[in-house]
Amino acid sequence: MKALVYKGPGQKAVEERAKPALAAPGDAIVRMVKTTICGTDLHILKGDVATCAPGRILGHEGTGIVDSVGTAVAAFKPGDRVVVSCVSSCGKCVYCRRGMFSHCTTGGWILGNTIDGTQAEYVRTPHADTSLYPIPEGGDEEALAMLSDILPTGFECGVLNGKVQPGASVAIVGAGPIGLAALLTAQLYSPASIVMVDLEDNRLAVAKRFGATATVNSTDGKAVATILKMTGGRGVDTAIEAVGIPATFEMCAEIVAPGGVVANIGVHGKQVALHLERLWDRNISITTRLVDTSSTPMLLSILGSGRIDPKLLITHRFVFDRILDAYAAFVDAAKSKALKVIVAF
Amino acid sequence: MKALVYKGPGQKAVEERAKPALAAPGDAIVRMVKTTICGTDLHILKGDVATCAPGRILGHEGTGIVDSVGTAVAAFKPGDRVVVSCVSSCGKCVYCRRGMFSHCTTGGWILGNTIDGTQAEYVRTPHADTSLYPIPEGGDEEALAMLSDILPTGFECGVLNGKVQPGASVAIVGAGPIGLAALLTAQLYSPASIVMVDLEDNRLAVAKRFGATATVNSTDGKAVATILKMTGGRGVDTAIEAVGIPATFEMCAEIVAPGGVVANIGVHGKQVALHLERLWDRNISITTRLVDTSSTPMLLSILGSGRIDPKLLITHRFVFDRILDAYAAFVDAAKSKALKVIVAF
Amino acid sequence: MKALVYKGPGQKAVEERAKPALAAPGDAIVRMVKTTICGTDLHILKGDVATCAPGRILGHEGTGIVDSVGTAVAAFKPGDRVVVSCVSSCGKCVYCRRGMFSHCTTGGWILGNTIDGTQAEYVRTPHADTSLYPIPEGGDEEALAMLSDILPTGFECGVLNGKVQPGASVAIVGAGPIGLAALLTAQLYSPASIVMVDLEDNRLAVAKRFGATATVNSTDGKAVATILKMTGGRGVDTAIEAVGIPATFEMCAEIVAPGGVVANIGVHGKQVALHLERLWDRNISITTRLVDTSSTPMLLSILGSGRIDPKLLITHRFVFDRILDAYAAFVDAAKSKALKVIVAF
Amino acid sequence: MKALVYKGPGQKAVEERAKPALAAPGDAIVRMVKTTICGTDLHILKGDVATCAPGRILGHEGTGIVDSVGTAVAAFKPGDRVVVSCVSSCGKCVYCRRGMFSHCTTGGWILGNTIDGTQAEYVRTPHADTSLYPIPEGGDEEALAMLSDILPTGFECGVLNGKVQPGASVAIVGAGPIGLAALLTAQLYSPASIVMVDLEDNRLAVAKRFGATATVNSTDGKAVATILKMTGGRGVDTAIEAVGIPATFEMCAEIVAPGGVVANIGVHGKQVALHLERLWDRNISITTRLVDTSSTPMLLSILGSGRIDPKLLITHRFVFDRILDAYAAFVDAAKSKALKVIVAF
Repeated sequence: MKALVYKGPGQKAVEERAKPALAAPGDAIVRMVKTTICGTDLHILKGDVATCAPGRILGHEGTGIVDSVGTAVAAFKPGDRVVVSCVSSCGKCVYCRRGMFSHCTTGGWILGNTIDGTQAEYVRTPHADTSLYPIPEGGDEEALAMLSDILPTGFECGVLNGKVQPGASVAIVGAGPIGLAALLTAQLYSPASIVMVDLEDNRLAVAKRFGATATVNSTDGKAVATILKMTGGRGVDTAIEAVGIPATFEMCAEIVAPGGVVANIGVHGKQVALHLERLWDRNISITTRLVDTSSTPMLLSILGSGRIDPKLLITHRFVFDRILDAYAAFVDAAKSKALKVIVAF
Repeated sequence: MKALVYKGPGQKAVEERAKPALAAPGDAIVRMVKTTICGTDLHILKGDVATCAPGRILGHEGTGIVDSVGTAVAAFKPGDRVVVSCVSSCGKCVYCRRGMFSHCTTGGWILGNTIDGTQAEYVRTPHADTSLYPIPEGGDEEALAMLSDILPTGFECGVLNGKVQPGASVAIVGAGPIGLAALLTAQLYSPASIVMVDLEDNRLAVAKRFGATATVNSTDGKAVATILKMTGGRGVDTAIEAVGIPATFEMCAEIVAPGGVVANIGVHGKQVALHLERLWDRNISITTRLVDTSSTPMLLSILGSGRIDPKLLITHRFVFDRILDAYAAFVDAAKSKALKVIVAF
Repeated sequence: MKALVYKGPGQKAVEERAKPALAAPGDAIVRMVKTTICGTDLHILKGDVATCAPGRILGHEGTGIVDSVGTAVAAFKPGDRVVVSCVSSCGKCVYCRRGMFSHCTTGGWILGNTIDGTQAEYVRTPHADTSLYPIPEGGDEEALAMLSDILPTGFECGVLNGKVQPGASVAIVGAGPIGLAALLTAQLYSPASIVMVDLEDNRLAVAKRFGATATVNSTDGKAVATILKMTGGRGVDTAIEAVGIPATFEMCAEIVAPGGVVANIGVHGKQVALHLERLWDRNISITTRLVDTSSTPMLLSILGSGRIDPKLLITHRFVFDRILDAYAAFVDAAKSKALKVIVAF
Repeated sequence: MKALVYKGPGQKAVEERAKPALAAPGDAIVRMVKTTICGTDLHILKGDVATCAPGRILGHEGTGIVDSVGTAVAAFKPGDRVVVSCVSSCGKCVYCRRGMFSHCTTGGWILGNTIDGTQAEYVRTPHADTSLYPIPEGGDEEALAMLSDILPTGFECGVLNGKVQPGASVAIVGAGPIGLAALLTAQLYSPASIVMVDLEDNRLAVAKRFGATATVNSTDGKAVATILKMTGGRGVDTAIEAVGIPATFEMCAEIVAPGGVVANIGVHGKQVALHLERLWDRNISITTRLVDTSSTPMLLSILGSGRIDPKLLITHRFVFDRILDAYAAFVDAAKSKALKVIVAF
């Protein structure tokens, strides 16, 4: 089969690989139908993710059709259409029993990281019963590929951790795909306002279409003052960090109201300054989270009800033979205006 | 009347002052019976608290007897014995309605800070109906002085924010009075273990008596490794910061388990490093809080039930004429072994 | 001034009364601009509300303009436009401090019940600072009259108590004004489905317009079976009782899924049968609640954001001189199709 | 092997049966070391549990040693000492993923009900990885047999559902084994008071030893008045029903304070009257629950910390050959004063 392989920092290639085989009773082999590319794949390609060794097939998102299942798999059979979750969960360990699948002792984020991933014709998925989700009749395989990672990540790490509530004020710093996923899912809780902050007017225009009630271009260095002014000096109830650098985190800590939450989604590469000398008496919370995908069943239900259209996030489509072009478009998002790119098999 | 007055950085004096008068319909004048000294008073004396101007009568804790009340005061009358809360709460503003009395728009921590405080024979207490608490019959005025600040602070900022739960593991970094207050009140939730960390063996010995299940002297720089070893490499569910310096905050962030909470109590004077490059995927929360004293009625009930003995925290007693000696003992806690010092009128 | 007065079971009259005067420092006198009629007013007129004595001016809803304030009122001054909350809250008692204003020891539902109410040119409102809400600039006095009672009641007793969540399933039994208010506010949490149950097709048609995803006419006695079928035999996550009779409560208990909630809003006049022999192992909750109006500030924010249009609930308008006609229309809702009727001064 | 078999209403016998065999990849066979008898076993023997057919080996509690495991079992191997949970949980279904193991679609309470149980030398346990719990080194097999059912039931259905909080007031109606288990575990949350209600002074004396702060013998029909008097007319924050008959449930509904919870543990055989005409405006919750045993890991941790001594519940010990005597003692608890009886193999 064909697969997109990480060849070491800065290098990737489409290679021919053997079709994966069942390795444990709980495994399934899934024939991929649609996959997509995540910012984390770019982190790996920069050499920033130590756990991912050269030779690894990349990818942790997508939808497909079950090809075969191990003897312990009860919920799926060959032919079933499925969403592949970016997080594998055994359902048994202490973390899984608490709903913290991200820290599953034999799972978590392993696909396209410590085991081969979904940017290939077939993928082996461990703990299939608790890591795949059935696609309902009529479900769209492109739309549901957004359930592998980006929608639950925006929702769990941003919206749930950020305790977004009806009538509240929200700011989302970073209008890339993950910030936009937070924006889409934040509206499930009907906040009174959602301010979107970014450096690019193009992304802010997209954010407006996606439901932002206001946008702030932070190029002029005055975003903090602008947002404080918008909120009568109080700050926002929820500040969602969706970039992953010190400047944006620190902006979130400056715009959060007393009693509010800074919900970090960004993947950070270095430490940030936390100004406890100003924050110690502000009654705030700061949260971090690797997505658990525990909200996937709920989001499936939401998508079924039509309250969110995940296809808003999809801007480009490629066949697998052109996956290198898909990467190029995704990397050069400023020019291509790419959000999520679908790669079809 | 006599009062302990802040005279500018490094200086304080007992002075003769006029007895305070009612200034608003919600005020009460309280004749103090017992007061005590807080670490925050020492911060003021170092010149670290910009809001507190020279000439201010210090003190925000204590018990007393109502001397007179304004026309809008309904819950108290002259002669009533009361606890004076360190936080004044109007009961009406948006923050008070949310239970966040610390950020009351006309209250919060004002006593001994922006208005005259409790280290004097009389004190004027604004918003008396919602800032004083009745002492039940038989209530001990020394024990209940611990309800003005230290017990609710340890409980709300450390235990409640830290989400201490039955069976969980807790570490408290800092075994001074506030860390010990967190230790006493953490036991209300029956954690399986409470590890106390400090640099002084004397304080750790006190912590053992107060209910710590283990202690770690961090002088050797190996406290993080020791605590991780104690918890099978996992870390603790709740790490309570009770010092207020970067080293102890950063220790808390290193020992917290996935899914856990770092609950900050310490008053910080400078920024700390937050290692989001290690924490972004750990599913943790970090909380800050100025005490709201919203737990005071509950703690009064707990004290009535005998489940906590707040007098464990009281090590020294002075009459008001010797309040400078009380300060000396409190400042030199290493030598005097002072925790809380009672000053009686 | 003119006022609508309860004259004993079955009797009411418009009478001339003295304009009320301030009676306590926390009082305000409000000149009414709009008022409305509640199902509870009809209960009083039936003689079902023992606390309400003949001679009482009815009404606990409406918007107006502050005419005068007592010496302890800080938040309002004459000329301010305000929403009068159906629940008076002192902000000080143990219940108010817990956010349970409905059980305020000197307040709760007193207007138009134990003290004179809002169906008059002027009304005296105790605890004004914490029982009136400011109308923002541009705020519509008719729309905001829906904030006195019906919207917070539907939201707090039905939606919040019912723990409505994104993606969940909801059934609301009773499509009268209060059931429709629950329907409008339930959508703030984006449930996947909301089934509305009633005996009248007309009301169900209104419910469809208000956002119900399905409707069930229960005339045929098969509503339980129909709803179970709709939910794959599982039942609904939230069943909201919005009628107040045994049959509808018992229906809710039959359609609630394991792990779900029956949230009672209805005012009941007799006991109901609770089939614990079927429910003891179903892991359900049943909740009751007199509205606290603690959600009023949030709902004000929501209305400002345009996410809910409360005027959908208003079907009829009368001037005060025709308030008896307004009552007639409201009583005969089957024929008049009245939901909420506005009475203007 | 020998087994205690249900022979139809009123009949039971010790019989020789074949040792069970593994039937599914997730099964384990456990050699029982200690078992015990539950009130539910008596319900079955009365013919009240329709799901349990004659011929069934009874019992759903106990500790043992793993004898063999299926191919999908990862967490246990032969020789491991284990607690057998009364609830079997697959870890995969929608209910298990929500922590509601009691409603597991292929598990729940099946042992000694729909499949053979633990009152036998060997038992087959489905979903072993998520239905057995490892006994820590040094763990006492008698003490830990209390973790199969009675302690999690008292804790989850009574204490957690009842939202017992520090400083709060609790009443437990019924001082049998399950009420006493609620009493023991309620203390993990440090309520200020726990009143125990029963008809027998002997049981109330036991309750006093177990930590009740007050006891009420309800024989005189004045228990409601007595408890209201104890609580200043307010009622209790949490009323736990631990009997399972209308009179005790209705008592709980009469003594619960505004804002409080009635947490039902009892197994009911008929409907109860719910006085919504008095309760609709009291802001209370009523909860039901079949134990999920989701708290078992936490309770294991608590038992390890020594905060609860489960052996307080054990009054009698028998060898398996005398299990009919064990039943006799358990049935005639009034005379034998039996709480839990241990049957050893």
